[in-house]
Amino acid sequence: MKIVIIGAVAGGTSAAAKARRNNEEAEIIIFDKDKDISYSGCGLPYYIGKKVKDRIELVPRNAAFFKKKYNVDVFTEHEIIDIDAVGKKLTVKNLITEEVFIQDFDKLVISTGARSVIPNIPGVNRENVLYLRNVQSADRIKTFINENNPKKTVIVGSGFIGLEMTENLKALGIDVTVVELALQVMPPLDKDMTIYIEEYLGKKGVNLVLGDSVAAIEGELPNTKVVLSSGKIIETDFVIMAVGIRPNIEIAQNAGIELGATGAIKANSKMQTNFDYIYACGDCAESYSLITGKNIYRPLGSTANKTGRIVGDSITGGSLEFRGILGTGIFKVFDLVVAYTGLSEKEAIKEGYGVVICYNIKPDKAVYYGGEEMTIKAVADKNTGKLLGVQIVGTSGVDKRIDVFATAITFGAKVEDLFHLDLAYAPPFSTTKDPVMYTGMILDNAINKGRELITPEELKTRIENGEKIKVIDTRVTKQYEVGHVEEAENIPQDKIRKDLENFDKEQITVTYCNKGVTGNAVQNILINNKFKKVYNLSGGFKNYKTQSK
Amino acid sequence: MKIVIIGAVAGGTSAAAKARRNNEEAEIIIFDKDKDISYSGCGLPYYIGKKVKDRIELVPRNAAFFKKKYNVDVFTEHEIIDIDAVGKKLTVKNLITEEVFIQDFDKLVISTGARSVIPNIPGVNRENVLYLRNVQSADRIKTFINENNPKKTVIVGSGFIGLEMTENLKALGIDVTVVELALQVMPPLDKDMTIYIEEYLGKKGVNLVLGDSVAAIEGELPNTKVVLSSGKIIETDFVIMAVGIRPNIEIAQNAGIELGATGAIKANSKMQTNFDYIYACGDCAESYSLITGKNIYRPLGSTANKTGRIVGDSITGGSLEFRGILGTGIFKVFDLVVAYTGLSEKEAIKEGYGVVICYNIKPDKAVYYGGEEMTIKAVADKNTGKLLGVQIVGTSGVDKRIDVFATAITFGAKVEDLFHLDLAYAPPFSTTKDPVMYTGMILDNAINKGRELITPEELKTRIENGEKIKVIDTRVTKQYEVGHVEEAENIPQDKIRKDLENFDKEQITVTYCNKGVTGNAVQNILINNKFKKVYNLSGGFKNYKTQSK
Repeated sequence: MKIVIIGAVAGGTSAAAKARRNNEEAEIIIFDKDKDISYSGCGLPYYIGKKVKDRIELVPRNAAFFKKKYNVDVFTEHEIIDIDAVGKKLTVKNLITEEVFIQDFDKLVISTGARSVIPNIPGVNRENVLYLRNVQSADRIKTFINENNPKKTVIVGSGFIGLEMTENLKALGIDVTVVELALQVMPPLDKDMTIYIEEYLGKKGVNLVLGDSVAAIEGELPNTKVVLSSGKIIETDFVIMAVGIRPNIEIAQNAGIELGATGAIKANSKMQTNFDYIYACGDCAESYSLITGKNIYRPLGSTANKTGRIVGDSITGGSLEFRGILGTGIFKVFDLVVAYTGLSEKEAIKEGYGVVICYNIKPDKAVYYGGEEMTIKAVADKNTGKLLGVQIVGTSGVDKRIDVFATAITFGAKVEDLFHLDLAYAPPFSTTKDPVMYTGMILDNAINKGRELITPEELKTRIENGEKIKVIDTRVTKQYEVGHVEEAENIPQDKIRKDLENFDKEQITVTYCNKGVTGNAVQNILINNKFKKVYNLSGGFKNYKTQSK
Repeated sequence: MKIVIIGAVAGGTSAAAKARRNNEEAEIIIFDKDKDISYSGCGLPYYIGKKVKDRIELVPRNAAFFKKKYNVDVFTEHEIIDIDAVGKKLTVKNLITEEVFIQDFDKLVISTGARSVIPNIPGVNRENVLYLRNVQSADRIKTFINENNPKKTVIVGSGFIGLEMTENLKALGIDVTVVELALQVMPPLDKDMTIYIEEYLGKKGVNLVLGDSVAAIEGELPNTKVVLSSGKIIETDFVIMAVGIRPNIEIAQNAGIELGATGAIKANSKMQTNFDYIYACGDCAESYSLITGKNIYRPLGSTANKTGRIVGDSITGGSLEFRGILGTGIFKVFDLVVAYTGLSEKEAIKEGYGVVICYNIKPDKAVYYGGEEMTIKAVADKNTGKLLGVQIVGTSGVDKRIDVFATAITFGAKVEDLFHLDLAYAPPFSTTKDPVMYTGMILDNAINKGRELITPEELKTRIENGEKIKVIDTRVTKQYEVGHVEEAENIPQDKIRKDLENFDKEQITVTYCNKGVTGNAVQNILINNKFKKVYNLSGGFKNYKTQSK
């Protein structure tokens, strides 16, 4: 059996290694048009920012390694210029010798990855407009910085690559302006969570331009001007384009291999394309949501590794099948950690779910042991009580909670299940009830116990729409005086029980405190005193204030 | 309704708070014989070690707080001297005035906690023999240290309190000797994992005496001698007794409240005792294993909080029910983190499971981003493929993995499920495939794909028993020469394919490398070449070497 793989990064090399583990006899050949193989693309921003000192740390393996370790032949700088899917043949071009030859296969793996989107903008091909995708593109950025000693940059796009580059270029002393078309950074997330990131970036001295885009790039070094659609002009030394990536599907498409609705290569759970002897994996292949079952395109290193391994197994007769993803992601920008899994609120609504939202602000560990606050937004399905998705912004311990949430969602956890988890507690690691458990408790109370929540946005909208809502600030008066929800009356918790008789129990009431706990306590008091409709403002005044910025 | 609660620490206060959240009218009264309430017992070692500066950080709440916040009356320094379960009456003694009075109740919550075991040893009541259980006992240790400026201590017992005290007393410049009756520290764990802790403690300059116990404590300050059963004598300035805790059940038992086989108070899933209006929670109550369904006694702050909340809910008509625990625990000693969940190997064997064991040594994050190795031991059920338990020793990221494992086990995960988890990957947080996923892959390969594992212990035993086993060290010769399994022949991986014809395929073969990956690769080559029985030495030479110390 002759297995030919196109692409020698995460997906292709994972497929080759797994295929060899399963099958000693197969001939396995990989072609890649790049010079570097099997590199850590996710580490590139840190190579530029000098956290990673040596290039070889990110590119530890070469063709000789694969030959020795796996008896796999890797040909770099070999581009596939045609796939004959029916005839089971590739036309291959050796980019060094320019020789073109035919390579036959029994089974083919397409792992051609993705490339940076190059927007159609005047000036986009100037030498100081740079992209980050593979090791060579990182080399170009490093060389540019070394040779030109730039003082300022414009990063176009605020996905995780844009934000990781923000941190790493700032680390080199470069002033950063981020331009983002959407009205928020990190567009896949909900705006009410990215506002925490935006606030933080401001504090770190990053210039953020939201809701604007680049119309043209003008002038040469050292006087380049980035002209925005709004007419605003930003002077810069160079530009990093990070507006997204798109799957490399052209040769597959030309060969009659089907694409999915997302534009990436369609594959079944064994990662087979419409030709059952042709497989796809990694960033060129479509994935699907474990929650909705729908096809999605989420090119990430973790998924590329996973689908590559599945290809390697199924191509050699194994039983592994892809089970879909939650779209879990994480990144850090300076000391802020942002993580997400499952559906955002806007995605869940678009999918037709009746959602219940909670914000949970909690320290990652015992406060006396240096606990630092994180803000957790969780989205649950009102009808089934299932957790649909979580977004977290914080510093320490965010990665742990997102992985626990992702694991719970994978197993179909209902919100009420989270309280029962037996998570590891000691003061250096958590709080006696972990933030994950609190999140479940809050949502369980909201969905199943009548302790309904209201988001800052909903409260504002309903008040604006003229609804008569009594808002009670349950904090001590000193806190109230520093700042409060405009419509709120201050009734500190310890006074509420005495005041109850003066209230209209028929009126819609919203309680709040600083983060949510006392607001919930007062909500309980009111509900237990037969108030008809009481909401607790989720995330308290702390979240409300941030959302009102 | 009059709810009376005995005990105002984790369980009792959680019960009170939850009961009040559910029910505004109930009268809620708590008695505690201690002065301090609602304190963080788990933080006490760090208070002694001065990581926690102020006592109030651990005891942030007092009776006034509970009155104001929850309308709960807390009476400290009030001891219950009798429970009349049938008559629904308590006899209470005010420890300050010595007044004795009768308190009736409709519902009673017993949350009397646990106390340190005081071994029956001559000299155990000397003033320099100290215990750590509540805040006052921590005060006594601090006072003793301040007044006597001790240079050396003997800690008796090496559970997590003994080891946390080791770190914190060393932090004060005190030389520590730990005496442990078992042949390992942390007796609930498997010896093959505690050996990593023991090795580390040695490096940190802690004197460890295993397999020995204290026979007597002789002499006064400053010339105290700890006489061990072996006859060995250790001179010390003071002794910390940390040989375990036992539930405070005497008043309950005297009242006819049933105890379980563990000696703690028996309770059903609503935490009711044999009197359905009397509840038990926290460290005085029995728990049960989510895996085996059997009753266990695992007094921990996290469980006390959980069972307290369940009592508060069920006592007020709520539907919360206790679902059992995995016995998840975590502690740190200096920079070493030790965590565990579910069954250890020895427990699983005792429970009659056919176990499959793997050791997985992996960095917590990308090595180029400063990843540090952890050793994961996982125990799976050969018959069902379910994960039964995990123990981890490492530095960074241990807490995350144990919580992901605990969550997976809670939902009945099979080993093959772990690879499919969509965990959050970015270089500062994980590796493209997380250590949790690798653990699942290794066990799945072992259980379902014929890639069997052998532990160092089993290999040694089988060789000692005269079995003819060919052992292949697959590492490069330079590594082999530094140290290797005595019986091993060195055939580096890149030579193995050429050598195959010289081998006896009928013979039992064991492969190994440094940590397991290359050993597995060669195992695959041999199996794919029709070798009859090939094991990979789990955890490789790195683990073997540690186990051979």
